[in-house]
Amino acid sequence: MIARTPAPFTADDYRARMERAARAAADAGLAGLLVAPGPDLVWLTGYAPTAITERLTLLVLVPGQDPALIVPALEAPDAAKAAGAAALTLRDWTDGKDPYAATAALVDSGGRFGISDNAWAMHLLRLSHTLPGSSYASLTEALPMLRAVKDAAELERLAAAGAAADATFEEIRKVPFAGRHESEVAADLARLLREHGHSTVDFTIVASGPNGANPHHEAGDRVIERGDMVVLDFGGLLGGYGSDTSRTVHVGEPTEEERRVHDIVREAQEAGFRAVRPGVACQEVDRVARAVITDAGYGEYFIHRTGHGIGVTTHEPPYMIEGEEQPLVPGMCFSVEPGIYLPGRFGVRIEDIVTVTEDGGRRLNETTRDMVIVD
Amino acid sequence: MIARTPAPFTADDYRARMERAARAAADAGLAGLLVAPGPDLVWLTGYAPTAITERLTLLVLVPGQDPALIVPALEAPDAAKAAGAAALTLRDWTDGKDPYAATAALVDSGGRFGISDNAWAMHLLRLSHTLPGSSYASLTEALPMLRAVKDAAELERLAAAGAAADATFEEIRKVPFAGRHESEVAADLARLLREHGHSTVDFTIVASGPNGANPHHEAGDRVIERGDMVVLDFGGLLGGYGSDTSRTVHVGEPTEEERRVHDIVREAQEAGFRAVRPGVACQEVDRVARAVITDAGYGEYFIHRTGHGIGVTTHEPPYMIEGEEQPLVPGMCFSVEPGIYLPGRFGVRIEDIVTVTEDGGRRLNETTRDMVIVD
Repeated sequence: MIARTPAPFTADDYRARMERAARAAADAGLAGLLVAPGPDLVWLTGYAPTAITERLTLLVLVPGQDPALIVPALEAPDAAKAAGAAALTLRDWTDGKDPYAATAALVDSGGRFGISDNAWAMHLLRLSHTLPGSSYASLTEALPMLRAVKDAAELERLAAAGAAADATFEEIRKVPFAGRHESEVAADLARLLREHGHSTVDFTIVASGPNGANPHHEAGDRVIERGDMVVLDFGGLLGGYGSDTSRTVHVGEPTEEERRVHDIVREAQEAGFRAVRPGVACQEVDRVARAVITDAGYGEYFIHRTGHGIGVTTHEPPYMIEGEEQPLVPGMCFSVEPGIYLPGRFGVRIEDIVTVTEDGGRRLNETTRDMVIVD
Repeated sequence: MIARTPAPFTADDYRARMERAARAAADAGLAGLLVAPGPDLVWLTGYAPTAITERLTLLVLVPGQDPALIVPALEAPDAAKAAGAAALTLRDWTDGKDPYAATAALVDSGGRFGISDNAWAMHLLRLSHTLPGSSYASLTEALPMLRAVKDAAELERLAAAGAAADATFEEIRKVPFAGRHESEVAADLARLLREHGHSTVDFTIVASGPNGANPHHEAGDRVIERGDMVVLDFGGLLGGYGSDTSRTVHVGEPTEEERRVHDIVREAQEAGFRAVRPGVACQEVDRVARAVITDAGYGEYFIHRTGHGIGVTTHEPPYMIEGEEQPLVPGMCFSVEPGIYLPGRFGVRIEDIVTVTEDGGRRLNETTRDMVIVD
């Protein structure tokens, strides 16, 4: 089955986003937004350079002005092909010219600007030098809601990506696990994600036995054995939007302890999901899921936050973490993924993408959260 | 043939590099170096996180102090496995804690710091806020020679990567071109680079006919035709060091004009190479190569700088470009890659990696620079 890939966004879609961003900047008292290659630029223009280098590429959004993209001349032909290019002016610069001066000419030199989180420090330092009196805030800090709240067209794409990830899980649970390297199962996951319509695969974690106790273990040479717990966590992009789901399977019959730990994580994930509704602070989702694990006596083994946003990337703000007081808003999409990690032994993680609705939450992953027994 | 991969660097190698970097920082009047994930961190510690995220990872090098790596707790197990980990102290932080304060505790709050070029703007803004009175310079600006001058062990690795790229060219010239998609020849290039020992393939440009006129065209759906010029530009990492070479081949017999343009580029490349010797400014290599093309009447069609450095990445400072007055130093390694790009028609580029010797330059690519005729 190939998932239906939603239609690409048009220049009008990108124009509307850039206008929305410029208005949001003005409302926040900013003189403009400076957007470097990365997810913000993809979201605003559809443009992703083939490589991010020291050559400055920068979208300059100033309220009341037409959007302009500073771009190296070499890369201008590629930029001109982006779906959003018709909604902006390309300002190319050739090697040896000063792109910071070109940027400065477009903005108020004493202004405060939002700059994309992942813009290079080198570029920020040069801009700051070229624009004496300017000041900066990271885009996530200045406009945390800009990409976080998804519209209907975006939700449709995230749902399609989630459905494809679910279809991948339904097939991976049938492949042999015991006696194969983690990397072989990971390759199966990547193949299945692509077969189900993903254009890119971002991660295919297969963490078996003691490797499961490291939440960031990817997949390695270890041969999976009968009796292993195996954390599967996989995702990528489909139609430009992300998938990310985790299930923990067991090779053969689990022990009572393994079953108990899995039950606790499932209950924590369920509780986190049920906490989702408009107006609740992000940290509340973390607190609720964490309380289940802490109450069961495993608090010290839940060593990461409960979730992260998802959109044109598989990992972005907002974060479901203690201290994040941002209230949930309908259209936000993020993971709810508590886990328990027992060093040297095994780990369990269960993860769905959840979107905030008018009166609660809706999961974009629907495969069983029971412990699946694999061969 | 599998190229011999040189032995990995050891903790002692990384310790020596970190000491050298701290000394260079002190000599430059800096209070320390702040190194984010990326090539600088790989070079100093051997550590590359599996993903670069908003969670702060930062190597803090302060002259007279032991090196410390601020690292998210989740990623600490991976960081501890890096070859250079034994030469530094890991300071992990868990979600919800403040890694900027942890950084501030290690440094002089009013100091001037070198920060890696590609550190996220978000991190720089937070550090700057947490360390009032601090100031920053990009690492390339503050210490341009830190990674640019390669030692003997690094040169050995770059030569091995270059030899593997050459072996790739000797095989790709024998594959069929006419009637195949660019992307198919690109896949052949990637396979051959790996067969010859590359661990990663960074780019496999196959730019046929009019696509050759875009220096940043990668490889696409176009079917290569008899009569096409085809720019091939490929490279990646072998043993942690980069390869990058370009040759322009022709499918069947070239026209007289195609031959003339190729001759001019070859002559420009030769002239650029011959200009390489210690003490000459980087821009001189560009000027000499460019003069050949300008004198032949094609100056406006040579639309990029003549070269870039190479090391633990395939693209880094120093740049062979007008305005770069940095003198060449023995051990520097960079590309010499002039080109001519005729819009809508074809392009030609010829590229070797060159290292500066005590009295001139030495090429690390040795395949023929004559125009190769392919099928």
